[in-house]
Amino acid sequence: MRFNFWLITNILGLLLVINGIFMLLCLPFSLYFREDIWHLTTSGAVSIIVGGITWLATRNEQNKELKKKDGYLIVTLGWLCMSCFGALPYILSGTIPDFTNAFFETISGYTTTGASVMTDIESAPKGVLFWRSLTQWIGGMGIIVLAVAILPILGIGGMQLFVAEAPGISPDKMKPRIKEVAKRLWFIYLGLTLIETVLLMFGGMTFYDALNHSLTTMATGGFSTKNASVAYYDSAYIQYVIIVFMFLAGTNFTITYFGLKGKFKKAWANEEFRNYLILVLLLSLSISFFVFSSKWEGFEKSFRDSLFQVVSIITTTGYVTADYTQWAPFLTIVFFLLMFVGGSTGSTAGGIKVVRHTLLFKNSFLEMRRQLHPSAVIPVRLNGAAVSRSITYNVLAFVMIYMLVYAVGVFLLSFTGVEFDTALGAVATSLGNIGPGLGEVGPVDNFYSITPFGKWVLSFLMLLGRLELFTVLMLFNMNFWQKY
Amino acid sequence: MRFNFWLITNILGLLLVINGIFMLLCLPFSLYFREDIWHLTTSGAVSIIVGGITWLATRNEQNKELKKKDGYLIVTLGWLCMSCFGALPYILSGTIPDFTNAFFETISGYTTTGASVMTDIESAPKGVLFWRSLTQWIGGMGIIVLAVAILPILGIGGMQLFVAEAPGISPDKMKPRIKEVAKRLWFIYLGLTLIETVLLMFGGMTFYDALNHSLTTMATGGFSTKNASVAYYDSAYIQYVIIVFMFLAGTNFTITYFGLKGKFKKAWANEEFRNYLILVLLLSLSISFFVFSSKWEGFEKSFRDSLFQVVSIITTTGYVTADYTQWAPFLTIVFFLLMFVGGSTGSTAGGIKVVRHTLLFKNSFLEMRRQLHPSAVIPVRLNGAAVSRSITYNVLAFVMIYMLVYAVGVFLLSFTGVEFDTALGAVATSLGNIGPGLGEVGPVDNFYSITPFGKWVLSFLMLLGRLELFTVLMLFNMNFWQKY
Repeated sequence: MRFNFWLITNILGLLLVINGIFMLLCLPFSLYFREDIWHLTTSGAVSIIVGGITWLATRNEQNKELKKKDGYLIVTLGWLCMSCFGALPYILSGTIPDFTNAFFETISGYTTTGASVMTDIESAPKGVLFWRSLTQWIGGMGIIVLAVAILPILGIGGMQLFVAEAPGISPDKMKPRIKEVAKRLWFIYLGLTLIETVLLMFGGMTFYDALNHSLTTMATGGFSTKNASVAYYDSAYIQYVIIVFMFLAGTNFTITYFGLKGKFKKAWANEEFRNYLILVLLLSLSISFFVFSSKWEGFEKSFRDSLFQVVSIITTTGYVTADYTQWAPFLTIVFFLLMFVGGSTGSTAGGIKVVRHTLLFKNSFLEMRRQLHPSAVIPVRLNGAAVSRSITYNVLAFVMIYMLVYAVGVFLLSFTGVEFDTALGAVATSLGNIGPGLGEVGPVDNFYSITPFGKWVLSFLMLLGRLELFTVLMLFNMNFWQKY
Repeated sequence: MRFNFWLITNILGLLLVINGIFMLLCLPFSLYFREDIWHLTTSGAVSIIVGGITWLATRNEQNKELKKKDGYLIVTLGWLCMSCFGALPYILSGTIPDFTNAFFETISGYTTTGASVMTDIESAPKGVLFWRSLTQWIGGMGIIVLAVAILPILGIGGMQLFVAEAPGISPDKMKPRIKEVAKRLWFIYLGLTLIETVLLMFGGMTFYDALNHSLTTMATGGFSTKNASVAYYDSAYIQYVIIVFMFLAGTNFTITYFGLKGKFKKAWANEEFRNYLILVLLLSLSISFFVFSSKWEGFEKSFRDSLFQVVSIITTTGYVTADYTQWAPFLTIVFFLLMFVGGSTGSTAGGIKVVRHTLLFKNSFLEMRRQLHPSAVIPVRLNGAAVSRSITYNVLAFVMIYMLVYAVGVFLLSFTGVEFDTALGAVATSLGNIGPGLGEVGPVDNFYSITPFGKWVLSFLMLLGRLELFTVLMLFNMNFWQKY
């Protein structure tokens, strides 16, 4: 056997059990709001029983060692498996009765995308809505493990750059260190979620709404419990709080850790963080001056709206407080381009990510120097250290495949008959795990009108984007399935 | 002196003289159509006198050897210089009275793009229109020299792949060989232009129209003497002739040479040619079935329209016989994506080009294999031979910069207030040297409505695209201007 199929099955079983437990955690809200509890209970029970039996049946496989190839399978199958069972509460409660739509909503949750097919969110049962927010938060937790523990080992798309904090560590010392790092980051993730909840409650939100929004902010997910998204809360305080936490959720959690320990100099020394911060400030200020000079709003409101939208898109959260597609054609274009940026590595944000852009931007300049001096070896430097050629190569290939997948996605979605801007926006927002797109799937619309075929295409793109492309695409590569 | 400035000036002078002679070649048409001849005579005289004096004054620099860095300057300045003087006939004749528009039309000619600002082409003097077509043909000649003799030496974006026919040749034997290759390809270029002229005349075109269309077909330029472009000629014969010659103009001229010598096997062995041919056929057939099944046209007409439009866009010619943006949203998207393909290397076509796509597509798959076997060296193979890592690296960087320039271009053009599709289409078509875009600059519209700022941005993009990015961008790199 080339793969540890039974060990993989064992882990998937465990994931389903955890999934089921999280479902049951939604019950208090169902009870509090006096809703029917059978659909959440059933969903949770089914998950726990199916997962539990699978787990128990394959228990004696646990001593086996996971191989590299197993990693790809676990990650992809894990996300798919969770999405299938996670759709149960929507289907059983009748909130989203058909499987295609329910699966779309669930995978949009687990991938922290936030694209929705629900046309009236507020009429849905509170318990199910809490489950909806929770899928994003679980997805965010998964992403942290992925970024810290799995992708660097698989060697995917420059993810090594992020963990390469301590380059001298030998492989056998890596494991306990990874466990420690993952724990630390989870602690920050959980802590920030709780702090945001409290801060939002200070702004007048109910505990239920505050918790829901905190869960989806920290996951850079963007599901809201309101039809109008965060625009529902016409409070500067609430919107600024969410801006700050969206920004933090899109920041490398290790940087946040330094920040919490007061090591601001060390945080500032990180090139990705610096560029991320500068980009957000520069863009928000420019756009707010434009919005203000067009006299649509007062200055504070212009600034807040611009900042909110920029942070929301760049961190791939996808909350909305203003419909930028109505501001001016040029801003639609700017926000469309922004969909290809993405947040920081080591955060819950999706997309291409700032460090890759930084690397490629520098490499483009160096490539010209290489042309002038063909025999010189000129490596890209990041945070003061030379980046190995094979990592640069890998990052180049990553972005190339990203654009290729984007083009194929647009091509496939165009078959469904959507307009030019809808197709380009929907694919960009799905692949980048953002949420709102352009045209028919714009900031104030949703994905309900997309055909089933289109929804499957977009679901696949969300998964591809979330798992840094290679993890999923690898499974379509013949070599992967070869014996050696 | 780090650069041979005077030698560069000398060569630019020579280019202007040649430019002036070509202008005077338009006079027979002015005389035949009984038009005023002073504007063409004056333009030609000014070019020849300015160029001649410059050339004579710097004559004794000719013995000096050109350095690599000089190459970048000559190419970029050459194209710019020609475009400035080439605008004279438009301005002096009053066809396009202002400099911005005239410069746009001229650089659109020399870069073989074919984007036009003329709203009524047929009312312009025939002599000037012939000059317009001639700028494209001259541009095409320039591109052949560039592709064969200059870019491979500068080491730009995988252009080595094309000349690497005979890998064993030592650098000192390269020069006579290059001269020979360039001559051979020019001969094919000239020969095909004449053959197409004769074939078009058989179809009932006048000598004047046939010659104009042949000049702009072989240059993959796309300027037409008719307002309706090739749609004016409602003849299947004429349209098929143009399709064949567009296809040939987008084919590597070395392959055409093999074809002419009957070495079809050798031509078919070339991966780029194979993929180019397969892509054209596959796309045309699929689109024609769609167009036919939508019952807009009969089958032959559907097939011809689809084939014409596909070949026109992929070869970056830009002729139009049908407005595909009116067919269906999905076809607009397909043609938009096709703008990023481009023809073959070693042809007059612009864009990213098929060989680069082939290389990157293969590399993407191999990158996954590299991830599974991190210590193995896995090179991309093209035409049966391994491609060196530095060339693959360079091609990756090229496409990355192409997309970066595209994004910056869209960003800049968005300031002019154009709509989403117009911005995306105009930049794609300019950078890819195609001609027609989408929206306000679609197949049946022109670029007149774009603001002056927008026209300068697009002009710069045409130049960038035509000179394979690096040649121009290099001049903006600090290292280029450093002493060593």
